[in-house]
Amino acid sequence: MYSPGLHILAQFTAPASTLTDAGSCKRHFDQLVDTLGLANVGEVYHSFPNGGFTVTICLTESHIAMHTWPEYGLATFDVFLSNYRRDNQARVRQIYTETLSFFQGIEQTKTELLR
Amino acid sequence: MYSPGLHILAQFTAPASTLTDAGSCKRHFDQLVDTLGLANVGEVYHSFPNGGFTVTICLTESHIAMHTWPEYGLATFDVFLSNYRRDNQARVRQIYTETLSFFQGIEQTKTELLR
Repeated sequence: MYSPGLHILAQFTAPASTLTDAGSCKRHFDQLVDTLGLANVGEVYHSFPNGGFTVTICLTESHIAMHTWPEYGLATFDVFLSNYRRDNQARVRQIYTETLSFFQGIEQTKTELLR
Repeated sequence: MYSPGLHILAQFTAPASTLTDAGSCKRHFDQLVDTLGLANVGEVYHSFPNGGFTVTICLTESHIAMHTWPEYGLATFDVFLSNYRRDNQARVRQIYTETLSFFQGIEQTKTELLR
């Protein structure tokens, strides 16, 4: 059975200032995707009236998804990259680590799922 | 700590005919989202030269993501809905069950993660 790759699912607390800044978040993900040589084939950023936002980035390698609840100081984060063309496991972990740092986040839960 | 909601991550085998039909997949998801009263705020469908496809649907309630590898007869599927406005756990399970059935899939792995 083919095993596509590694998926990290996390939840972290962070300052409301970062959890409401979709523009900075987009620049962060754009830079990561570019630096790591991933292929973004479409994305959605949607902001809510309370300042929270929700993001899905569709990659040829799979996806990144993030949702913020600034009223609870909380975000969920997903990154899943397939190893179809090359081994991307280290990139999955790097994307999570750099995103946690970018949001000044404190990890509450992290699950690594090898799919 | 706020607990956003239920995420199902699954992997299933299915006939290549369903794993290469992005148009039918879109009609399936459109109908489910409509029937269940969810709010699609943007989506991406991307097809690969080999007929496989990758989908992310951004919902105000969180997201749906699916990736197919027809050469391996395999798909991964994710649905995560927050309970922000109402309890959506039964809808998460319904979306997964109906998607598995739509693709004529045979479940290989399923993980339920309460985030």
